[in-house]
Amino acid sequence: MLHGVIMAGGSGTRFWPKSRKSKPKQLQNIFSKRTMIQETLDRIKPLIDTNNTLIITGRSHAEELKKQVPEIPDQNIIIEPVGRNTAPCIGLAALYIKRKDPQGVMAVLASDHLIKDEKEFLNLLSVAKMVAEEKGYLITLGIRPKKPETGYGYIQYGEEILAINNKKIFKVNRFIEKPKKEVAEGFLSSGNYLWNSGMFIWKADTILNMIEIHLPELYQGLMRIDNVISTDKERDTIEEVYSGIESISIDYGIMEKAKYVAVIPCDPGWSDVGCWNSIPEVLPCDEDGNVIIGKHIGIDTSGSIIHAPHKLIATIGIKDMIIIETEDALLICPRERGEDVKKMVETMKEKSMDEYL
Amino acid sequence: MLHGVIMAGGSGTRFWPKSRKSKPKQLQNIFSKRTMIQETLDRIKPLIDTNNTLIITGRSHAEELKKQVPEIPDQNIIIEPVGRNTAPCIGLAALYIKRKDPQGVMAVLASDHLIKDEKEFLNLLSVAKMVAEEKGYLITLGIRPKKPETGYGYIQYGEEILAINNKKIFKVNRFIEKPKKEVAEGFLSSGNYLWNSGMFIWKADTILNMIEIHLPELYQGLMRIDNVISTDKERDTIEEVYSGIESISIDYGIMEKAKYVAVIPCDPGWSDVGCWNSIPEVLPCDEDGNVIIGKHIGIDTSGSIIHAPHKLIATIGIKDMIIIETEDALLICPRERGEDVKKMVETMKEKSMDEYL
Repeated sequence: MLHGVIMAGGSGTRFWPKSRKSKPKQLQNIFSKRTMIQETLDRIKPLIDTNNTLIITGRSHAEELKKQVPEIPDQNIIIEPVGRNTAPCIGLAALYIKRKDPQGVMAVLASDHLIKDEKEFLNLLSVAKMVAEEKGYLITLGIRPKKPETGYGYIQYGEEILAINNKKIFKVNRFIEKPKKEVAEGFLSSGNYLWNSGMFIWKADTILNMIEIHLPELYQGLMRIDNVISTDKERDTIEEVYSGIESISIDYGIMEKAKYVAVIPCDPGWSDVGCWNSIPEVLPCDEDGNVIIGKHIGIDTSGSIIHAPHKLIATIGIKDMIIIETEDALLICPRERGEDVKKMVETMKEKSMDEYL
Repeated sequence: MLHGVIMAGGSGTRFWPKSRKSKPKQLQNIFSKRTMIQETLDRIKPLIDTNNTLIITGRSHAEELKKQVPEIPDQNIIIEPVGRNTAPCIGLAALYIKRKDPQGVMAVLASDHLIKDEKEFLNLLSVAKMVAEEKGYLITLGIRPKKPETGYGYIQYGEEILAINNKKIFKVNRFIEKPKKEVAEGFLSSGNYLWNSGMFIWKADTILNMIEIHLPELYQGLMRIDNVISTDKERDTIEEVYSGIESISIDYGIMEKAKYVAVIPCDPGWSDVGCWNSIPEVLPCDEDGNVIIGKHIGIDTSGSIIHAPHKLIATIGIKDMIIIETEDALLICPRERGEDVKKMVETMKEKSMDEYL
């Protein structure tokens, strides 16, 4: 059976001032009337029963999250006491799925990505499930790159393994972390590189085996938890294990090392919308290349992202800028500095400007 | 006796969104706790009794103005039915002063300029009054230029006429309208050019004589008004006269043509603070050259003017920008486009965005 695993522990600081500590990006409705986590769930519902979907999140977001997705049973919301990157998170989810469904396949998804072509996306999950089930591979979805993006990791793929329902599945040669511009340009022209979407499909049993081999300390911790699941020691044991384990990504910890890793090249209209600067990829622009949410009047204003639901924004001589207004704050920065919004939030943390975090 | 004439009819659109139709620049407290008209009155009070100060304004501002300067008697607030530039405004004021004090001298001042050195300014008015009284000259205050400003008119001065209290008074050779940059640079290096401050001192009788000679139609209109002042026809007659007269500045209508025009070169820390871009001339900058009013956090932010009393403004990679927040609007534009705020207001007028005007 296919299970959903939605990772919802992110802080989304690059979407400040909209994304806040108490209500990060995945719990915000930046792109539509539904929040990103709601969109994520809506998307997989035709394929995966909500009873078979787990959401992993942090304690401070659990309450708001439960409000937003009341269709998910309480016991399917797993709370990590602290964030330890993706490997522990995925390992923990695998424990629960394997107990419930020893042969279960899990689709590991982010809670804050956009996917335009939902039908294609569900096709991909179905195909990946079959391969994971039949072949025992670790499957990842690799997005055909549109431009030499330096904000994503890349996957180099090799020989074709098989083809199902018009989808070809390839062996992965290697994973590459976020490259420099020139390197990314080389990837694009060589043709056998894909963007690493961070979406994975595999059997719970398979990934636990891989963790046992490549991350033995994490595996021991997970086994301690496994022994007490559904007992009154569950929460305390998770806390203990998490306080002692290494923070490590599934990419670095497993994917780069495992042998049987496959990728499905695809193009389901995916974007991780990592920061305000990526908004024009996913929302329509006006004739001057502006994305405007709210009331705006401009003279010589182009290529800009203006999100201002409360006030009239008047701009003169503005090009490629990000202007974001919320109830209590206003962000102004050039689009090319969009990633630095994270730095801004860190600066505010240092200055204990808690009310704005 | 010296009388004050404060012209308060301006719309101050270049200070939008702070300056509004119902409460323009002179009725705003942009630079201190007092509004600009209050500052203007405070400045001259040591020299000119409030009973001898006239304020000329438009109907829509009269009520707010009376609230702000309750010390000015109601009959000293003269309402122009429409704006017709400075010549009719000054002529009208001269009528009232001459009736009250046939030998009276009037100091014509703007309601929305800043002057830092108040003591020096009052010295200048005293000296100018003496020259106006004794010699019958039209006197203007010429500011020693600091830079090749293209936003001001210039005055070329010639021979010295006399000196009183260490102030030298020169004959004016000519008035020059706002010059191009290269021309302004030439003025600065030649040494005998001054900025035209738009502040004038003369006998009411003298300026009315000059209007009779150089603007005879305006003079006839003023005489019609003079005949009915203090009767129940006063208001209607002013309306009639104003509806028929030409809109013309005192500079163009009189100063450029009159023979006995003198200037006192001076430096009382004057600024007409014509638009947001001139704020750094009059308010202190921080170490990055920013003028900040409100709560701000910046990364790589310099040379900018940020006026935001309501929200936290966060800026990254911003240089020489104007960012102005009010209750209902937000303006963002480069400092070099500061003059274009006027255009923005005109655009909003065309679009009937009345609530923001």
